[in-house]
Order: sequence, then structure tokens, then C-alpha cells
Amino acid sequence: MMRNDETALVVFSGGQDSTTCLFWAKKNFGKVTALSFVYGQKHVKEVALAEAIALKAGVEWECMDVSFVGNLGKNSLTDSSIRMDMEKPEGTCPNTFVPGRNLFFLSIAAVYARERGINHIVTGVSQTDFSGYPDCRDAFIKSLNVTLNLAMEEQFVLHTPLMWIDKCRTWAMADELGVLDIVRYDTMTCYNGVQGDGCGHCPACKLRNDGLHKYLACKKNNS
Amino acid sequence: MMRNDETALVVFSGGQDSTTCLFWAKKNFGKVTALSFVYGQKHVKEVALAEAIALKAGVEWECMDVSFVGNLGKNSLTDSSIRMDMEKPEGTCPNTFVPGRNLFFLSIAAVYARERGINHIVTGVSQTDFSGYPDCRDAFIKSLNVTLNLAMEEQFVLHTPLMWIDKCRTWAMADELGVLDIVRYDTMTCYNGVQGDGCGHCPACKLRNDGLHKYLACKKNNS
Repeated sequence: MMRNDETALVVFSGGQDSTTCLFWAKKNFGKVTALSFVYGQKHVKEVALAEAIALKAGVEWECMDVSFVGNLGKNSLTDSSIRMDMEKPEGTCPNTFVPGRNLFFLSIAAVYARERGINHIVTGVSQTDFSGYPDCRDAFIKSLNVTLNLAMEEQFVLHTPLMWIDKCRTWAMADELGVLDIVRYDTMTCYNGVQGDGCGHCPACKLRNDGLHKYLACKKNNS
Repeated sequence: MMRNDETALVVFSGGQDSTTCLFWAKKNFGKVTALSFVYGQKHVKEVALAEAIALKAGVEWECMDVSFVGNLGKNSLTDSSIRMDMEKPEGTCPNTFVPGRNLFFLSIAAVYARERGINHIVTGVSQTDFSGYPDCRDAFIKSLNVTLNLAMEEQFVLHTPLMWIDKCRTWAMADELGVLDIVRYDTMTCYNGVQGDGCGHCPACKLRNDGLHKYLACKKNNS
């Protein structure tokens, strides 16, 4: 992608994917703003981590309370009384799916961007490791892009640098951007709220750690 | 349209359009649920009116607080410090446009419907009298329908009975449904918060009253 002097807004959770996207945006855009959400997630620690990473990256950061998103549909990420699915059940989404989460996050980001004259919105969703979440797929993002433009008569561009790459290649991207250690140690992806390499056994940790070990082995073999 | 025994969810503000849609849904669906929103609008009286109309119509009614919608973008409907545009300014939306309002209302309605196993969602938007609001147009609603289905892997159907008719024909529809007086006297459309025939001079009143007088004159001539 050609470097663009305009501003990009990154939807930023402080996890591996959106942190990689934050540094990708820093490389590719003139200015970067990061937007985090509190939505009733059990591990609000991720918001503090997000703020610290944004500070380290030297980008503007803002956090919005959108708790209504977590309350709309039953799910195990915002409701402690539901036991978390460790694997995707056949024929349905895992109960870690917060219905409409990316729809609301990206729609709110678009209104926020519009108020500030920003057209470019970056999100870390990936179809490759989509884990059964329909709102991580490319068709959804493209459809939403059209919907947002029609809703507000704007020309938003949704950027998804991780859409077609797996976790191993996401680690490679972080390394190429010179931030492998920041992404490895400062972020949190774990469903059980453990920073860095995480608890190791939840679905998010498995995916993240498998990708990391694959990437590190690959790098070692090539050196 | 063929009568459908399933349940329909009506996005219900208590104004002329959504009240007409509520009775349209009662005629065309087996069961109807009405969903209203508090979003920081100046005239919360409209919520009490909505509840009263739902009671009279004998349909289930629920109200959700989504104040975040009114706070996202500057507009004169939720911010008293902004003087309301009385006409559509050239080349832009009037400042009564709450950015993303229908996008959020319909997205929230979809998650709400999904939790209850409802596929049919009814909204009173109309392209004919769209007053410069991009999120009342048919292309937006159709794009959003696809986006919602992709976001949650569902088969929602968004119904827009008023999309291609003007205010005069909306009054005719209310009359055919046997609820002309309920729509005329129990609803509120007025930007200045006056029930029934309204203040008479805001843009919403002008549109509504012109349509009513046209319809009543037409009816008289045909009788």
C-alpha cells in the first residue's frame, strides 16, 4: 500500500491483532488515532493495556463506554454466568460471540471519524482465523463499508490488513514493523485476562501461541 | 403482502410513520412487538406516547436506553445549544440529522430480534419525504439488511411499508387500517414536542400537516 498522508482511525482493543494494525497504520498514514471500547467485557484490564500501548506508540487515544453492546445478546465474554465454549460448536457460533460487536464498534468508529473529518478506519479482523465469528469475514466488512457510506453519505474506507493472513503471518508482520516484543509482551488476547503469552489453554491463547511458535521456528530455520 | 403468522418487531418512536407501521404490522403478522429508544432526544414525552399507543394497540412494548447514539455526533435534535435548521441546507444534511441513527436503531433491533427468534423487522422510513436524511433511503436499508444478515448469520427481513409513499398516502394507509384518529391525535412528530397536529411551523409539522390536508381534501372530493 502507498503511504497516505491523511489520518487513520484504528479500532483498538489492545490485543495482538489491533496492536499490529496500530503500527501498520503508523507506517502507512500521516496521523493515527486509536479508539478503544468498554463494553462490559470481563477483563477491563485490556483497556489500561491499550492506553499504555497507544502512549508507547505515540498516537492519540480515546476510550468510549458502549456497555449496551455487551448487554444486547447473551454471550460468555460479558456474562460470567455462562460457561465459555472452548471450541466452536457444530452448526453455530461459539458463545464467546457477542452479537453485532464488530457491527457496533465499526459503526461507532465511523460516526466518530466523520465528526473529525477522518475517512480511513482500520480494523484487525481476519477471515483466516475467524473462529466461527461471522462478523470477522470479508463479505461482512465490505457490505458494512457500503452501508456506512450510504448511511452518512460519506466515503469511508475500511482497511483490514490482517483479513487474509493467519496468526503466524500476523507475527511476521509485527516483526517486520519492528514491534514483535511490544505485541508479544504488552498486549492481551487471552479470554482469561492474562497479559502477554496468556493462560495458554483458552481458544484465543491456543491460536495466538501456535502462530507465534510457528513463526519463531520458521524465523530460526531461515537465519 | 400475504399475511404472515410469524412475529414482527416494529421500531417504534410513537410518531405518525412508525404508528402507521405498527398497525400495518398488526394486520400482516401473527404477533407484533414494539421497540422504542431513548437516545437523548429533547422530547422524551414521545416515549410515554409510544407506550400509550402500544397499550391501545394491544402489542408488547419495550424501551431501551441508547443515549450514546445522541452523543456521538453533533445535531440539533439532542443538543439544545444548536439552533435547528428549518430547511435543508444546500449540499448537506439538515442539522436535525443524528448521524447513524437508523443504522444503530435497526442494528440494535436486529440483535434484540435475534435473541427472541424474530426475523421480521419493520421501520417507518420513507425515501419519498426523506428530507435530506441519507439513512431513510431504500439503498441504505437494503444494504443494511445484507450487512445485518452477514454480521450475525441470520435471515432478517427489513420491511419498509412507507418507503415509496408520501405523507398524503401514509394518512390514507392509516385510514384504511381504521386508525386515522389514533395516528392524528395520539402521536407526536413535531420537533417542538407538541402532540397531535403539532406546533404547525417546524419542518416535521409542515410535512405532516400538508399531507393530512391533502388527504382530507381528496377524501372529501371522493365522497
